[in-house]
Amino acid sequence: MRTGIATVCLSGTLREKMQACAIAGFDGIEIFEQDLVTSPLSPEDVRKMAADLGLSLDLYQPFRDFDSVPEELLTANLRRADAKFRLMSRLGMDTVLVCSNVGTASIDDDELRAAQLSRLAGLAADHGVKVAYEALAWGKYVNDYEHAHRLVQTVDHPNLGTCLDSFHILSRDWDTAPIESFNADKIFFVQVADAPKLSMDVLSWSRHYRVFPGEGQFELAKFMGHVVRAGYTGPVSLEVFNDVFRQSDVERTAVDAMRSLIWLEEQSAKWLDANPAAGPAGPAAGGAAASRRRYPMELATLPHVAEPAGFNFAEVRAGDTAALETLLGQLGFTSNGRHRTKNVQLWSMGHARVIINEEPAGGASAGTSAPAISALGFDVDSPVIAAARAQQLKAPAVPRKSQANEEIFQGFAAPDSTEIFLCQGNPDGTAVWTREFGDGLDVAAADRAGDPGTVIDHVNLAQPWQHFDEAVLFYTSALALEPQPFAEVASPTGLVRSQVMLTRDRGVRLVLNLAPLIQQEGATPGAAGTAGTGHRPGYQEHIAFAVDDLVAAARAAQARGLDFLRIPENYYEDLDARFALEPEFLATLRELNLLYDRDADGEFLHFYTATVGSVFFEMVERRGAYDGYGAPNAPVRHAVQYDHLHQQSTA
Amino acid sequence: MRTGIATVCLSGTLREKMQACAIAGFDGIEIFEQDLVTSPLSPEDVRKMAADLGLSLDLYQPFRDFDSVPEELLTANLRRADAKFRLMSRLGMDTVLVCSNVGTASIDDDELRAAQLSRLAGLAADHGVKVAYEALAWGKYVNDYEHAHRLVQTVDHPNLGTCLDSFHILSRDWDTAPIESFNADKIFFVQVADAPKLSMDVLSWSRHYRVFPGEGQFELAKFMGHVVRAGYTGPVSLEVFNDVFRQSDVERTAVDAMRSLIWLEEQSAKWLDANPAAGPAGPAAGGAAASRRRYPMELATLPHVAEPAGFNFAEVRAGDTAALETLLGQLGFTSNGRHRTKNVQLWSMGHARVIINEEPAGGASAGTSAPAISALGFDVDSPVIAAARAQQLKAPAVPRKSQANEEIFQGFAAPDSTEIFLCQGNPDGTAVWTREFGDGLDVAAADRAGDPGTVIDHVNLAQPWQHFDEAVLFYTSALALEPQPFAEVASPTGLVRSQVMLTRDRGVRLVLNLAPLIQQEGATPGAAGTAGTGHRPGYQEHIAFAVDDLVAAARAAQARGLDFLRIPENYYEDLDARFALEPEFLATLRELNLLYDRDADGEFLHFYTATVGSVFFEMVERRGAYDGYGAPNAPVRHAVQYDHLHQQSTA
Repeated sequence: MRTGIATVCLSGTLREKMQACAIAGFDGIEIFEQDLVTSPLSPEDVRKMAADLGLSLDLYQPFRDFDSVPEELLTANLRRADAKFRLMSRLGMDTVLVCSNVGTASIDDDELRAAQLSRLAGLAADHGVKVAYEALAWGKYVNDYEHAHRLVQTVDHPNLGTCLDSFHILSRDWDTAPIESFNADKIFFVQVADAPKLSMDVLSWSRHYRVFPGEGQFELAKFMGHVVRAGYTGPVSLEVFNDVFRQSDVERTAVDAMRSLIWLEEQSAKWLDANPAAGPAGPAAGGAAASRRRYPMELATLPHVAEPAGFNFAEVRAGDTAALETLLGQLGFTSNGRHRTKNVQLWSMGHARVIINEEPAGGASAGTSAPAISALGFDVDSPVIAAARAQQLKAPAVPRKSQANEEIFQGFAAPDSTEIFLCQGNPDGTAVWTREFGDGLDVAAADRAGDPGTVIDHVNLAQPWQHFDEAVLFYTSALALEPQPFAEVASPTGLVRSQVMLTRDRGVRLVLNLAPLIQQEGATPGAAGTAGTGHRPGYQEHIAFAVDDLVAAARAAQARGLDFLRIPENYYEDLDARFALEPEFLATLRELNLLYDRDADGEFLHFYTATVGSVFFEMVERRGAYDGYGAPNAPVRHAVQYDHLHQQSTA
Repeated sequence: MRTGIATVCLSGTLREKMQACAIAGFDGIEIFEQDLVTSPLSPEDVRKMAADLGLSLDLYQPFRDFDSVPEELLTANLRRADAKFRLMSRLGMDTVLVCSNVGTASIDDDELRAAQLSRLAGLAADHGVKVAYEALAWGKYVNDYEHAHRLVQTVDHPNLGTCLDSFHILSRDWDTAPIESFNADKIFFVQVADAPKLSMDVLSWSRHYRVFPGEGQFELAKFMGHVVRAGYTGPVSLEVFNDVFRQSDVERTAVDAMRSLIWLEEQSAKWLDANPAAGPAGPAAGGAAASRRRYPMELATLPHVAEPAGFNFAEVRAGDTAALETLLGQLGFTSNGRHRTKNVQLWSMGHARVIINEEPAGGASAGTSAPAISALGFDVDSPVIAAARAQQLKAPAVPRKSQANEEIFQGFAAPDSTEIFLCQGNPDGTAVWTREFGDGLDVAAADRAGDPGTVIDHVNLAQPWQHFDEAVLFYTSALALEPQPFAEVASPTGLVRSQVMLTRDRGVRLVLNLAPLIQQEGATPGAAGTAGTGHRPGYQEHIAFAVDDLVAAARAAQARGLDFLRIPENYYEDLDARFALEPEFLATLRELNLLYDRDADGEFLHFYTATVGSVFFEMVERRGAYDGYGAPNAPVRHAVQYDHLHQQSTA
């Protein structure tokens, strides 16, 4: 599959965009006109630069408001087109995107429209240019890709074809199957964009909220499957207008974009394998994959990984580890000593393992950092294959030093810079590497410590606002986690967007939280504030452990002196009003600072510890088939944590 | 008018919210249930705290999903209501908001609904509670305020009335006139919220994008007029769910909120005056204002100000003034010397006056700050009256020291901390205070310097994201500027939202720009970035001067060696493709780095200077009735400025 991207997807100048696209590995780019108009580079400079960078210049875009106009305006439009076609010659480009008319169309007549497009195609032919005509979802008269295609067929000129843009097609819920019947020679270009399903006007949706494939909710693999079956072999190019990408680091966004196409390519191949064409010859001999190989577009696949079975470990990095050690001990964790060569400790309870890493992060001064979640280990079938997949998906590797006889962890950095390690989990939930701790510790004994049923239930990571969508695609593509519909919960400093990423069997639950901007800006008030107190506690992340009997675990922790997050009395009164709980049960919840939720599937009990650095812990018990995270209780948690931080900052 | 606000409008804890409401001067508050549930304050604490702060507790809210349910669920709902009514007794509150059912309604039967509401009213009566029933815009069966009112009439119980919420009514485009016929005794509560007109699902619109009155596009004065005519005298209370306000400084947002009600009160009185009721007795004797005074709700008015006639001056603060002085001199400005007692210079050209202030800003160290726009002076009819109005609108005053015989400027701080001064403009465009400069300078002579037709055309100020809506209301209410529909322009670091604020005669044009977040976060890349270059130039502001002959002004500036913002050649080729300009004219534009725009009303020529500190200048010529700002050229300007800064930062 030839990969492409429109320069409008990225931030920066045309030069920066082109360089970032080349570094990310794109085959070609679309030149968004405004990026050229605002650039000091001459068309000849751009042509040379593209050649030097190994980028083909696949599409000049957009040319707007051409068709369905009176003759006088058509003449002006042809003059405008002539100027742009001459410019394209200087750029060495041969395909231009012409959008269906939005602004100036006044005559709704397909015959006239075809005649006008025919004149444009004739002019284009004089310049050696091909016109890719696209139905915008909000085109005044032409807003359906089949309509655009019919016009192309009517004109029947070698220099006129159509451009298929997944956004304009899927945002309108048009059926994509008819694409298969299109003549591939008449599909001049294919643009792809994903989007979250939003109910808003399609223009605003298109201009602000498009995302890269895998970051939204469109059925892009199916769209691409039909395109491949049509016989199309040209570029598959991203055209994504997104408010955040436009202000994010250009090189990073280009890599995120490339990852989305690599993933889409694999998903498209899978869709074709799963949906063999019912052609006249029936399914091809040799099975589904052979069927896919009948089509001219080559689709590369990635090393296959199954979803991870569970968390192998969670790691917290800290300079001063005393508070962390105290908390874990009070929760019932056992210290399994230090690593034989590294400055890290292992704490475990059942199959939940927490590593305390005392080595300073790259660049930081030793021993001064406040505790923060720094790494997660996932149990996978084959760490090597999973690492190869992640690497092909352009995940940045983070090799860790290891010595003879030590397990080598395959690691890479997630978008929020959390280190992700791929581990060989034992079927019984133990981990081989634990024997590197505590002078030849008995692995099984270490894993039996504490409540034997304990596991890491979920981990909650705060995401920077620039990289939220990137993180969703990262975990989807590299770790086979599935994004769930997102939720929003109230906190004293704003709404927190919460995106759950799951494996199908719930062995891994990862929660990506997008904290309010004001928290991300740290503890200072707005730059231009003239009034106000300006206390803005930073965001907190946590690791949640699931136990079989939360009340028993809480009582034990209480006996060990655990500093529970104190839940207000008002919460229990509201809980009683909502759920009509047994008085004795309610009294237990109240006594132990437990939170409670219930839905049609089951019940959820949980409690939180105090926070050290930016980390706190949660302990949960799932009853029945409860599949949530106690979201109705999240505002209480946020408010109490805010209150604590606020008291600290004003004390 | 009794003023109120729901705690959900604000950030922080319940204690912080209540304190901020009291400081801002609200009469009462609505307790949003979640704020109480998450609070360590007992209901008795809240009651006492409110009494101490002089706040009445006007409404407990929301009670959801009560009506239109089967008997079994109704029993549970009544039990839930009983618990909440008991809680309200402890709070000393007597009114609860009950929203029409969204989630659990399953029986669409008005008779049953009325019977169920009647039972709720009966239970409420036992507790001394009044139920204000509200039709949510997305209520399953009841989503029209008139429907809710009909149910209230059917039940006819003293403890059941309705709550009118402007958002739920105006978001659905319901006619508000029927409110006048409501029995005032049955309107238990009135909530007001404004909103920008967005085409999206009403629930998302409501939960994220509500704004305070005057910050959106709803006809709230008309809504309030009808409410007043109905005879309602209860609280008018803000209920505004807004993603930004929820994370902004609580005290500042409370003041912004209070300002919106003060302004709404005035606007409502004006609407009543302009729309006298056609009652059986006809318009009241004594004119419109007397007609308004017939209604029981008292509406306070504000000191009246006409819109400002123009800019009196713009002030730039700078430590090192050399670059600024050079730029102004090259543009054709004349130095009029220093102020007799202050460390400021006056530069003028025609009626455009720029003050260079060398005194350090409050708190800053002397003489080190880079040039930045620090103050604007506006010509008003009566500075004292305008200042009184601003003060009543809670604008923070910024008195400036002045000595005997010097003009006293009435000043206050805008939300972005720009200082706004109200000046007595002379009808001929001169300013009396200029005689305080240059040892008894001849005022008229100073103002005649340079091109005599020169004026400040517009000023463009960057706004922090937390205070954009606040700024719109501030200039609307305190300075009588009118917000225009906003535009968005592309820049290399993201979309810039641009909000024009105008006087009707165009004497004042102020452009509020909301820069991309990444710019507001300064020159550092995202906190968790693992890759990328991270060059993020800061945002720039400017002052634009209008001249009669831009080509002549540009030639003169060129002769004086002005450092023009260099416009790329690609721009002129695109300009020619779009407008088919005369070759000679195009050559002039190209030679002088002029930008050009044209629309149905006229033409616009302009150029920009280089930037010093965060300030640059623009010179414009308006031809015909052109009323814009060259928005199609803004991306060029942003790209070139970005390129310059980028080159500086990588040099």
